[in-house]
Amino acid sequence: MAPTPIVDIHTHIYPTTYLTLLRSRTEVPYLLDLPNKSAPPRLIILPSDDDPALPAHQRGRPIDSSYSSINQKLDFMKTHDIHTSVISLANPWLDFLSPEEGYQWAEKVNNEIEDICSTSQNSLYAFATLPLSAPSRSIVAAIECLYLLPHMRGVVLGTTGLSQGLDDPALEPVWSALESAKLLIFLHPHYGLPSSVYGPRASEYGHVLPLALGFPMETTIAFTRMWLSGVFDRHPKLKVLIAHAGGTIPFLSGRVNSCVQHERHFPEHEYGGRGPKRDLKEVLRENVWLDAVVYSPTSVKAAVEIVGKDRVLFGTDHPFFPPLEEGREEWMSVETNVQAVTEAFGDDKQGVTKVLGGNAIELLELNVAGAG
Amino acid sequence: MAPTPIVDIHTHIYPTTYLTLLRSRTEVPYLLDLPNKSAPPRLIILPSDDDPALPAHQRGRPIDSSYSSINQKLDFMKTHDIHTSVISLANPWLDFLSPEEGYQWAEKVNNEIEDICSTSQNSLYAFATLPLSAPSRSIVAAIECLYLLPHMRGVVLGTTGLSQGLDDPALEPVWSALESAKLLIFLHPHYGLPSSVYGPRASEYGHVLPLALGFPMETTIAFTRMWLSGVFDRHPKLKVLIAHAGGTIPFLSGRVNSCVQHERHFPEHEYGGRGPKRDLKEVLRENVWLDAVVYSPTSVKAAVEIVGKDRVLFGTDHPFFPPLEEGREEWMSVETNVQAVTEAFGDDKQGVTKVLGGNAIELLELNVAGAG
Repeated sequence: MAPTPIVDIHTHIYPTTYLTLLRSRTEVPYLLDLPNKSAPPRLIILPSDDDPALPAHQRGRPIDSSYSSINQKLDFMKTHDIHTSVISLANPWLDFLSPEEGYQWAEKVNNEIEDICSTSQNSLYAFATLPLSAPSRSIVAAIECLYLLPHMRGVVLGTTGLSQGLDDPALEPVWSALESAKLLIFLHPHYGLPSSVYGPRASEYGHVLPLALGFPMETTIAFTRMWLSGVFDRHPKLKVLIAHAGGTIPFLSGRVNSCVQHERHFPEHEYGGRGPKRDLKEVLRENVWLDAVVYSPTSVKAAVEIVGKDRVLFGTDHPFFPPLEEGREEWMSVETNVQAVTEAFGDDKQGVTKVLGGNAIELLELNVAGAG
Repeated sequence: MAPTPIVDIHTHIYPTTYLTLLRSRTEVPYLLDLPNKSAPPRLIILPSDDDPALPAHQRGRPIDSSYSSINQKLDFMKTHDIHTSVISLANPWLDFLSPEEGYQWAEKVNNEIEDICSTSQNSLYAFATLPLSAPSRSIVAAIECLYLLPHMRGVVLGTTGLSQGLDDPALEPVWSALESAKLLIFLHPHYGLPSSVYGPRASEYGHVLPLALGFPMETTIAFTRMWLSGVFDRHPKLKVLIAHAGGTIPFLSGRVNSCVQHERHFPEHEYGGRGPKRDLKEVLRENVWLDAVVYSPTSVKAAVEIVGKDRVLFGTDHPFFPPLEEGREEWMSVETNVQAVTEAFGDDKQGVTKVLGGNAIELLELNVAGAG
């Protein structure tokens, strides 16, 4: 039996349309071209990046061609033996637009990404972007239009929802539309935590604290709020793929459950238990998938134990975390994650194949004919 | 062979001295007696508890006799077959005092706790409290005096240090004194995260979000800052026991490591690697112990994989998380944690015995003669 091909379900892109949008802006997020035309433009993505005291070439992060070039994405895939990638717009998506602008930009971005996929001979699929600043009927319309884009396999979603988080009752029509359309939600962080939590010396550690800790903590809070507010009680068929192996959910789910069981605020159900009607364990095994972007065999094992080995999916986070050494082709970040999956399963080769590709092929109905 | 006795290393108390201190205050934290004398006083522990719009009996949390009664602690131990407990003052310790007051209150509290332990026939030991608002020479003096208190086995420490967090260089004399005295630091959360991260509907979930997520996230950030700032490079013998199984460290350590390895801000060492000189994995296996207060076999396994099975220690978090049902003797929170340890080790009975008590007896040099 040929091994199942490798599928990367966590891989980002800033398509040309989106870079044009960012270039047209002067408020965060925006793209800043440097006087030195050979230097990559800077993406000012968070308010903390927008420091006028810093020279332009030190603000935000450099956005080189790897963020938009499909050829570089395909080369990267070839280097790492990745047969198929499910691409998604990188953060902060379209959250920042005015209600009027959201719908048309979502349409433009999704159409460009569909075009990219449709000329890729089945090596690229995508998660679409929603116009979350638009009125909810526009968001629902955008979801309903996605069936016209045959390479879309779900939607990428940040944690702010319509600005009040994912436990906002105003999101109900959006959850209903996603549930009916059977579209997977790829839940992804962007905002992190307020910078005060990192203390006055945080800048001495570069981006480590917000990236390594803020991102997964933001994700964990967002998902927990969804569960606590009953989203999965009202939408039992909703499917959520959570970035970075669920943030910290596999490790904290026992504590969350225990805190709910000991919280007087939640009355006990007639049938026992407190809090949301559907138990957290059940939701994690029936509504949740996790990527394996977690850089540790211990954490892959925890993820697999919590959601099941059919529900953990390999990803790279490309083009983030490139090698720092010049001229190195293989990415350490990718190798670490492949090794983590391999070590986590030990002798269970079938588990490795499922997580590296089989689960994604089945869940997202990917056409990988001729691969292997 | 008789099984090793069970030792509880995470169990709190508010001794009489401390309640007197809290009763004398009118600012957070303080203790509020209710007009109805039979109702327990309320502890207003966080600024968010201090809501004058709420009637007094709904502010903060009720502090019944289980928080201060040694007899109730001993009864609880008997019910759960716990032979020895290592008690510590519950948060927020003495962090809030003026520099002048800190030293004397630390002395009073530590002396009272030592008296409690010395009359307990070796069933109680303790972690001492430091006067962290005092000048660092007073903190060092307080540490040096602890050798006069024979039941003290370490110190309990919050995450704010001298107000700037645990990566503050001003803490150097404190780390040196703790390292020289070979005192274990029990690192424990209190402040959580800014409430904005829980969104506008947080109060609908009682205390679940700050307790279940804020506490472990605060702990994770505090420890990571210690490591990043080089505390363990400068103090290679420092010993830290991290509450709640390290917050989320066992799950996120791979990501933290990867972010450091991909952070241009840290120059590469001559011998390879980036960031602190001592690798995170090494520090976790040589300087860190974790409690097993994590309510999940998956998380106990992760903790054991990351620090080693000699370095995970059972705890209960008593008197927090009592049963909500009237008249129930066994605490579900305790049973969940005993079961998590038992399930995590499967057939490895020695592992279970070590985590439930053996590791604590060895690490803390507890006298448990006659037990078993």
